[in-house]
Amino acid sequence: MIGLDQLDIDTSGAFVEALSLAPYRDGVLNGLTFTVKDNIDVAGSRTSFGNPSWRDLHPAAIHNALCVDQLLNVGARCVGKVVADEFTYSLDGESQFFGTPLNPKAPDRVPGGSSSGSASSVACGLADLSLCTDAGGSTRVPASLCGIWGMRPSLHRISEAGVLPFMPSVSTVGVVATDLDNLNRAMRVLLRSSFHPVAKLQRILVLDDAFKLADEPVREAAEISIGKISERIDIVPERVSFSDILGWDMDLTVCNVAALRSLQTVEFESTVGDWIEHNKPELGYAFSLAYGNVKSFDRSKAFKAIDLCERLFEKIRHFLQPGTVICFPTTPTVAPLKGSLNTMESVLDFYDRIMAVTSFSGVGRLPEISAPLLSIGDCPVGLSIAAAHYQDEFLLGAAHEMFIGA
Amino acid sequence: MIGLDQLDIDTSGAFVEALSLAPYRDGVLNGLTFTVKDNIDVAGSRTSFGNPSWRDLHPAAIHNALCVDQLLNVGARCVGKVVADEFTYSLDGESQFFGTPLNPKAPDRVPGGSSSGSASSVACGLADLSLCTDAGGSTRVPASLCGIWGMRPSLHRISEAGVLPFMPSVSTVGVVATDLDNLNRAMRVLLRSSFHPVAKLQRILVLDDAFKLADEPVREAAEISIGKISERIDIVPERVSFSDILGWDMDLTVCNVAALRSLQTVEFESTVGDWIEHNKPELGYAFSLAYGNVKSFDRSKAFKAIDLCERLFEKIRHFLQPGTVICFPTTPTVAPLKGSLNTMESVLDFYDRIMAVTSFSGVGRLPEISAPLLSIGDCPVGLSIAAAHYQDEFLLGAAHEMFIGA
Repeated sequence: MIGLDQLDIDTSGAFVEALSLAPYRDGVLNGLTFTVKDNIDVAGSRTSFGNPSWRDLHPAAIHNALCVDQLLNVGARCVGKVVADEFTYSLDGESQFFGTPLNPKAPDRVPGGSSSGSASSVACGLADLSLCTDAGGSTRVPASLCGIWGMRPSLHRISEAGVLPFMPSVSTVGVVATDLDNLNRAMRVLLRSSFHPVAKLQRILVLDDAFKLADEPVREAAEISIGKISERIDIVPERVSFSDILGWDMDLTVCNVAALRSLQTVEFESTVGDWIEHNKPELGYAFSLAYGNVKSFDRSKAFKAIDLCERLFEKIRHFLQPGTVICFPTTPTVAPLKGSLNTMESVLDFYDRIMAVTSFSGVGRLPEISAPLLSIGDCPVGLSIAAAHYQDEFLLGAAHEMFIGA
Repeated sequence: MIGLDQLDIDTSGAFVEALSLAPYRDGVLNGLTFTVKDNIDVAGSRTSFGNPSWRDLHPAAIHNALCVDQLLNVGARCVGKVVADEFTYSLDGESQFFGTPLNPKAPDRVPGGSSSGSASSVACGLADLSLCTDAGGSTRVPASLCGIWGMRPSLHRISEAGVLPFMPSVSTVGVVATDLDNLNRAMRVLLRSSFHPVAKLQRILVLDDAFKLADEPVREAAEISIGKISERIDIVPERVSFSDILGWDMDLTVCNVAALRSLQTVEFESTVGDWIEHNKPELGYAFSLAYGNVKSFDRSKAFKAIDLCERLFEKIRHFLQPGTVICFPTTPTVAPLKGSLNTMESVLDFYDRIMAVTSFSGVGRLPEISAPLLSIGDCPVGLSIAAAHYQDEFLLGAAHEMFIGA
């Protein structure tokens, strides 16, 4: 762990561009600073999407993304654009082109991605908040591995105008933050929450499949943490399996392998894939391998998968009622050591297990908050709670009640 | 009115490119043909977005949009790409660059837009279905003015991969069709509906504000039609005002003027606006005027407007329960005569009144079906029903019960 007082922009490696954009006016984020992931437009800057050719072949943005304007409009100052994994199609945070932003709590380990610079800039104390995105876990995973707060809202609750189109049925804008209060205030601005009624927290479910996927120390730490919370707020957690939610026998890993990943693959091919084929940009080695899988994907297999996504969504929607949260370790593992994802076996183990867990909120289009509550040795891991689709405001309230105290 | 047997592709003026893409396999759309609006990718074709410079500055698509693949996968044949209004930012269907597709039931009148070629190709009997899009009414308005069926689904229920990004908080894929059976079958494929439970039709609401905005003959025809339906299915319609839905005093026109149009304007500016500024394409006269309004819009006014959009969404969501439909004339007027939208006064009257009505489903993110039930002289007008967000399958069932017979 590195002391925050030793950290500056250069040592963090999180920034692609330092900025100082003054807020438009005073508001609920007065005095707070934020960074912006490099797939979100900031006027006057070229958005790289994590790939230098994309940056060089596109002009500078003329307008800020609407989400950037929303934060500037309530008192926050934008202090820079930060590193994104290549085409945001990664969860590890090691960029061949832009470097690996520092994970200050575990400096020999990756920060997680694709919002690597967002998580690093906040974990290093260089910003209070960061605007980022999440399709397969890109907000939640680096929040978990860097030990900060992160939230992915319900699908499409936040405007994506000025955010690079990626996977339209899966992508969201997300936020990572130093503490829950900042996360809550920023999210409520972005979600435009003033008038949303909020249910009372009544049930805490524990997603059994996600615990089974977790490393033993992560599972133990999560069990202890949930036990303490439930005792304090006097709600007995109920274990449920993915099969219980669906009403038929199916493992959570199917959510990823047979459903969401196929939808992601065809949508990525239709958006970024066409651009790559036309422009033949230089691609990083890790992304090239991933993109090879996209190109070799049999699109005729997508139809069953996208139908299954809708069926899973509908089942999860009926199971999760307002007043209920479902709880699980955000990632089944701590951050891998830098450079250790260098064999197919290590890559597959990292991605398959993580995405089996993150795809639960993906297919459910659920809001999910990752809280920096677990430590395995010196390495942080997040504890996540998710709620029903569009129950974002309830989830923020439940996080306060569960993690901070009523 | 022109007899369908006299119509071919040339006289329709609907097509930008005739195609014959065979279905991938047999399925529920066996034997049906469809066209594709020219803002949706078809592999091997350049997508124009209704502007020749956009078409010439972008390469041909490599992949079909996912929605195109979904229809090909269940037996339908794609017979062509069809005209879209410039940047799909219009509701009248008069394109300076691609001509005005024929409205065969009212040949001296506009077809409506922006899915002008979609509605025309179906109304002319040259396709059974057309894939189109709808942000401010671009599917519903031409369906109404051409006298065919049309549906805009709940926001983001259908994948927009390969569909030109436009207004991410407002745009949907839509369908127009010759009859409700074809519309229903195509929509259920696109929505992936197999597993959605469906509520029973219990309440029919009548949106008073929309009736007040309508021309007298449209209002009368709609009242008579609803009266007959309610008698046949034995459900007494209940009149509600927009104020009843919200619980405070506000006119439906506010929905458009103070809420949705601002969100549309800032999102359009962030997507298409940046491209126009960088590329300085040749713009049609009518679009130039509209785009002038986009450029002169004060973005600082957007924040209140987008907050209001969310508030209206939340109110409508709580008011419209499963089992309830809300009913109103799709457009307050018949199609204007071609070339008649040539004064600021005529343009404002057409757009302000239409968008006041269409923005109801826009802010509500509602599914809406326009049924070709009304005739004012020789001119068709649609009767719309809308249902709660994500109640698309219920709405399709309710349309069958109300318009066809149980």
